[in-house]
Amino acid sequence: MPEFQARFKGRAEMLAYCKKNGIKVEASAKKPYSMDRNLLHISFESGVLEDPWAEPPRTCSNSALRLRMRLTRRNTWNWFLKRAYASWSMASASHRRTLCARSTNSAANTASARVDLVENRFVGMKSRGVYETPGGTILHFAHHQMETLTMDREVMHLRDSLIPKYSELVYYGFWFSPEREALQALVTESQKNVTGTVRLKLYKGNIITAGRKSPVSLYNPRVATMEADKGAYNQTDATGFIRLNALRLKVAAQVRDNKG
Amino acid sequence: MPEFQARFKGRAEMLAYCKKNGIKVEASAKKPYSMDRNLLHISFESGVLEDPWAEPPRTCSNSALRLRMRLTRRNTWNWFLKRAYASWSMASASHRRTLCARSTNSAANTASARVDLVENRFVGMKSRGVYETPGGTILHFAHHQMETLTMDREVMHLRDSLIPKYSELVYYGFWFSPEREALQALVTESQKNVTGTVRLKLYKGNIITAGRKSPVSLYNPRVATMEADKGAYNQTDATGFIRLNALRLKVAAQVRDNKG
Amino acid sequence: MPEFQARFKGRAEMLAYCKKNGIKVEASAKKPYSMDRNLLHISFESGVLEDPWAEPPRTCSNSALRLRMRLTRRNTWNWFLKRAYASWSMASASHRRTLCARSTNSAANTASARVDLVENRFVGMKSRGVYETPGGTILHFAHHQMETLTMDREVMHLRDSLIPKYSELVYYGFWFSPEREALQALVTESQKNVTGTVRLKLYKGNIITAGRKSPVSLYNPRVATMEADKGAYNQTDATGFIRLNALRLKVAAQVRDNKG
Amino acid sequence: MPEFQARFKGRAEMLAYCKKNGIKVEASAKKPYSMDRNLLHISFESGVLEDPWAEPPRTCSNSALRLRMRLTRRNTWNWFLKRAYASWSMASASHRRTLCARSTNSAANTASARVDLVENRFVGMKSRGVYETPGGTILHFAHHQMETLTMDREVMHLRDSLIPKYSELVYYGFWFSPEREALQALVTESQKNVTGTVRLKLYKGNIITAGRKSPVSLYNPRVATMEADKGAYNQTDATGFIRLNALRLKVAAQVRDNKG
Repeated sequence: MPEFQARFKGRAEMLAYCKKNGIKVEASAKKPYSMDRNLLHISFESGVLEDPWAEPPRTCSNSALRLRMRLTRRNTWNWFLKRAYASWSMASASHRRTLCARSTNSAANTASARVDLVENRFVGMKSRGVYETPGGTILHFAHHQMETLTMDREVMHLRDSLIPKYSELVYYGFWFSPEREALQALVTESQKNVTGTVRLKLYKGNIITAGRKSPVSLYNPRVATMEADKGAYNQTDATGFIRLNALRLKVAAQVRDNKG
Repeated sequence: MPEFQARFKGRAEMLAYCKKNGIKVEASAKKPYSMDRNLLHISFESGVLEDPWAEPPRTCSNSALRLRMRLTRRNTWNWFLKRAYASWSMASASHRRTLCARSTNSAANTASARVDLVENRFVGMKSRGVYETPGGTILHFAHHQMETLTMDREVMHLRDSLIPKYSELVYYGFWFSPEREALQALVTESQKNVTGTVRLKLYKGNIITAGRKSPVSLYNPRVATMEADKGAYNQTDATGFIRLNALRLKVAAQVRDNKG
Repeated sequence: MPEFQARFKGRAEMLAYCKKNGIKVEASAKKPYSMDRNLLHISFESGVLEDPWAEPPRTCSNSALRLRMRLTRRNTWNWFLKRAYASWSMASASHRRTLCARSTNSAANTASARVDLVENRFVGMKSRGVYETPGGTILHFAHHQMETLTMDREVMHLRDSLIPKYSELVYYGFWFSPEREALQALVTESQKNVTGTVRLKLYKGNIITAGRKSPVSLYNPRVATMEADKGAYNQTDATGFIRLNALRLKVAAQVRDNKG
Repeated sequence: MPEFQARFKGRAEMLAYCKKNGIKVEASAKKPYSMDRNLLHISFESGVLEDPWAEPPRTCSNSALRLRMRLTRRNTWNWFLKRAYASWSMASASHRRTLCARSTNSAANTASARVDLVENRFVGMKSRGVYETPGGTILHFAHHQMETLTMDREVMHLRDSLIPKYSELVYYGFWFSPEREALQALVTESQKNVTGTVRLKLYKGNIITAGRKSPVSLYNPRVATMEADKGAYNQTDATGFIRLNALRLKVAAQVRDNKG
């Protein structure tokens, strides 16, 4: 390991070694950034991207499309392009994999889900990266839409407050840690009612909600309606609700007035 | 108040009263939803929108544009449309107001920043709303970009974990509460180094980062670079860093192995 | 309910009714406070205790002992008083109930675990109460000691940050809520390794740890020792650990220096 | 530094060197643990204390008293011992230092505030320590009592949820970090109303609240009382308060019933 570090001090030395020994790599003078790709996403970093004021070059910006060409041979998404709508129902893991691949293609077609960000590495430095995660972004968006319909308010606010910690753990490489497992238990519990169908429109990089429904929706039009004859929500309840929620503020105001 | 509630049980009764008395209101059979507008945003709720599976009608969807027409008479943003780039420098409060108005128009032109969501009201019900906040969305995006460059990692993660609480307080109407003021002290402190310039591209509903720079940027290319001769980051430090971060996990694994 | 409220406007009216109708209650002129008792604890509130500057009267202060007399007829804790030590092993639920009853008596004998506090009611007011929870306090103390030995650091800090929320939910009456269940999933997961034996000394109101051990202890003397020949902890690892943990602070200091 | 590490691999080698060179140190065969002392506290670690099942030896257990003998020559606390009460008013920093010294002596006299704990070091290991912080413990207790009387409920719950993070930062040595400063801003804001007088009893290791009062107390007996003629709290407000707080749970229960 120290020998390896001494020999290849940086990316430049590695590229020189590859060239000399006829090892093919994608990084080059023309695409002067590193590029990592897997089923879920593609990332661009280093080289010209090291200046956060510099806009990513065009070669980097077309990658989602090229990613698509590799993932699917038959253009199964002609259907999608014509219809311009897609629906996701919550499904089994294998179904989700399929959805992810198909979403990746849909998104690639419409250039969705490209982020250019300055991130905070575990080792303590900021670094700049450009990421494309088209399928993942769509599934995440759809999933969140389903949560808004089926997840309890307090559970959602609690879960949201813990996501920065959860994300940090995954990003830092602590997937196999007891704290990730403890958070997972909460997150998994929060999901037990999240199921239904979301309808999305993908349009030139935009993901637009076109509808969501669920057999276990917590949205109850009979409660939410502002129409008198339909409503189950009793307006007079609001009086006591507001008064008691304000009680501590009222007492504090009296104390302030007595002082002043 | 109880008399008022008895007389106008719902929105339908109110509309009838308005019609009978010649009071002009915008809600009607053609636009069967309520509409609230201020300098920052426009919201659509109720009526046909009460079904979260229903897509918002076209009349509702063109509103940002109409909002633009009212806010500016002269098309000061021809410049913007031609150049397709805009830069925001952090500025005084009056400057921010101007920015907000100009951003609103830019965004309206490109149909940015429309959200269709199921939200959780303070009184305990879910409800569906469609919001357009074009200028606010762009400023928020630009501001967050500047934070990624100038805000410390730990401050950002801490702040992020408290945003669900802060948002909840603002949404529920607890702006004038001591807990909002306590959170504000933390948020204000987190912002003291956040200043610089962000360059954005607005394209058909997308907000795209085209660059960010700051005199107090915490992004240090000399630390972040992967090139050997430039780097200030010492790779060998990673060995001890990784080992000690893993120490507790290693001890736990030994305990598991002894048990099994 | 409104009729009931109209008739018995406060505690004074209720006491008068009881007296008139020969209903026996414990509250009286001599013990001018309310008193609620169950297997786990006894609480004193109202009356003379409404002034938070007033010290609780002696009648109130002997209650833990009187509680003991009611809970056990035979003095099974002579053993305890002579030995002055007690050990708790984590055990089944029925065992825990027994432990709780026995702890209550031990604690009552030594006047442990009385709290005098100003609390924050759900309805928005502060109120003053005096509580005695001898057995519960000892079990909680013992349990926490076992956690320090067997619970991962990060899990503990995460759990601790959520306890104010968990406690709030229990105190406000939201046991049967999805957010309590979500938190419970995390808390339950955090406990899966918490087992072992704690040895305590109870002395005149003090709970003193006299030892703790566990077959799944994460305390590893071979790692923690400061003796060279035994240690598994490598001091040189600390160099990289400290340097990388300080990297972001170092970069920030450079930025500040350049500005100044 | 590496030379130093090579020469003194552990505490045993250091003690041998000290003996050989006539350097006086307190650690010895008789007191086989390390001992660190400052104005605020004394700590015992290592040696025989490395076994968390072992009770600390008597020499270690009398230290608070010995600490007292060094800090004060004249027994200024005879007054305290006779009166058995002490009052703390919030005061200037110099006053707080005096209070801390006097509290240390009071507490030492009554053997308060000794903790025996297994802690989690920053470098990833658990370690066992015995600490005595008599004055600090009393001041902390008194301060918390004042908070219960004068601090808003929501501010307190928020602050409490952040204390594990704040403590972690101080313990790990991140006092001069921007995240500690951000948290500090919140904590400082939370304290702005915390002032008044607390009366405590110290009795054989127990710290007992004997009263607290404040010119800015948020405890309002007129709100909290259960007596009808005095009360400012309107019981009927509770109806709407309870109904709306339960609304989301009621809707969720209906959804569950429809499914079952």
